[in-house]
Amino acid sequence: MSSPHTQLITLYSAKVCPYAHRVEIALAEANAKFKIYHIDLANKPDWYAPKVNPASKVPVIAYGGPDVAPENPSPQSTKLAESLVLVEFVADLYPQANLLPQDPVLRAKARFFIEVVSSKFSPGYGKFVIRGEGYRDLLLGVEAVQEILPDSGKYAIGDQYTIADVALTSFIARVKLASENELGKFEAGQGEEFVKALDSPKYAKFNAYVERLLERPSFKATFDKEYIKGAFEKRFARA
Amino acid sequence: MSSPHTQLITLYSAKVCPYAHRVEIALAEANAKFKIYHIDLANKPDWYAPKVNPASKVPVIAYGGPDVAPENPSPQSTKLAESLVLVEFVADLYPQANLLPQDPVLRAKARFFIEVVSSKFSPGYGKFVIRGEGYRDLLLGVEAVQEILPDSGKYAIGDQYTIADVALTSFIARVKLASENELGKFEAGQGEEFVKALDSPKYAKFNAYVERLLERPSFKATFDKEYIKGAFEKRFARA
Repeated sequence: MSSPHTQLITLYSAKVCPYAHRVEIALAEANAKFKIYHIDLANKPDWYAPKVNPASKVPVIAYGGPDVAPENPSPQSTKLAESLVLVEFVADLYPQANLLPQDPVLRAKARFFIEVVSSKFSPGYGKFVIRGEGYRDLLLGVEAVQEILPDSGKYAIGDQYTIADVALTSFIARVKLASENELGKFEAGQGEEFVKALDSPKYAKFNAYVERLLERPSFKATFDKEYIKGAFEKRFARA
Repeated sequence: MSSPHTQLITLYSAKVCPYAHRVEIALAEANAKFKIYHIDLANKPDWYAPKVNPASKVPVIAYGGPDVAPENPSPQSTKLAESLVLVEFVADLYPQANLLPQDPVLRAKARFFIEVVSSKFSPGYGKFVIRGEGYRDLLLGVEAVQEILPDSGKYAIGDQYTIADVALTSFIARVKLASENELGKFEAGQGEEFVKALDSPKYAKFNAYVERLLERPSFKATFDKEYIKGAFEKRFARA
């Protein structure tokens, strides 16, 4: 697609954020060299919105421009936002990472899988963990993902690990962390209930797939479990 | 990206549907050879969900397999759904159509533009025209799109017409048709009000851009204005 990049990459991220985590996983898969700057989402630096992202969200990649400190971003770098846009960007920059197949049909299948994650799985995470509105939709998301898993192959569209897998990994990791530790906006006990529901044999295919996702070195290297657990404990402390 | 395709394409579409229209525009830009079958959305054929799309929506591309009649789809073709997935698929199949630049940064900009259309513009169309909930969000969508238009260049990301432009074209065309003819779920008079609001000098850049979109031969060849007008007249008939 493109020759290997030669320009500087700075990723503005946040350890708790499943969207930002997608980009960290993709960059790890690509073995990319980049700077990372963690934004405190509860207390964003004053320069972030005006100089990096007017929407004031993570993730952002600042691409190109001079070699500056992340907290002093250059107007000469291009600021790119939106996690799924950035994951495709990393796949385009590093074709040798094979984050997308060359075959147009397989590329379409990967993007369709992402569409299912975005419309059915990640909203279920938000409802259950962030807003405490029950795990019914999350289980429907699990079913929707399982339904489109291929009959054979380790990952979302076959044996190749792609951006489709990246899109789900950061969310299912947080679903597990939250439910297994009763950390969420939900009532105490709902986490355990969800864990039991997910453990049903009818989700065996999904669970086996998730196990493979969470074994991936790119995930392990980018998921700071203890940090996120601590942040969730603070955020979701029960009276 | 890929060599020119040699496999058969059948597009399942519907003239009224802005999502399906995106794929028709992309195929027209690519000068692709394909069969088209129009689904009556109010009365879908029995074979459509089981044999083409379990979600029972358009657009779908059936790709490959034997040369069959569209109403008798072969299990040997791959069925691909979701308008934005299909627009990328067409761009991948026909690289010579230049629906996406080669440069990763420009590709990211095109996809970011699409994200703005999807999250801010097309929901505004649904609210105003389909559900009659006012045009406030639609105008915010216009502002959001205008804000990311480049300082120079004819189209969404510069002088090259890309999938970003495709994503908006089918929606703005229906917005104009509906508002200029008072055809929508909204109260009579709201169409004219919206037309006047959009005509403000503060949207001059957006309007000049839209004019260029609607001059594009791929749009003109795929927009059956009289048919859609008739369908809207039936659907939105006022008491």
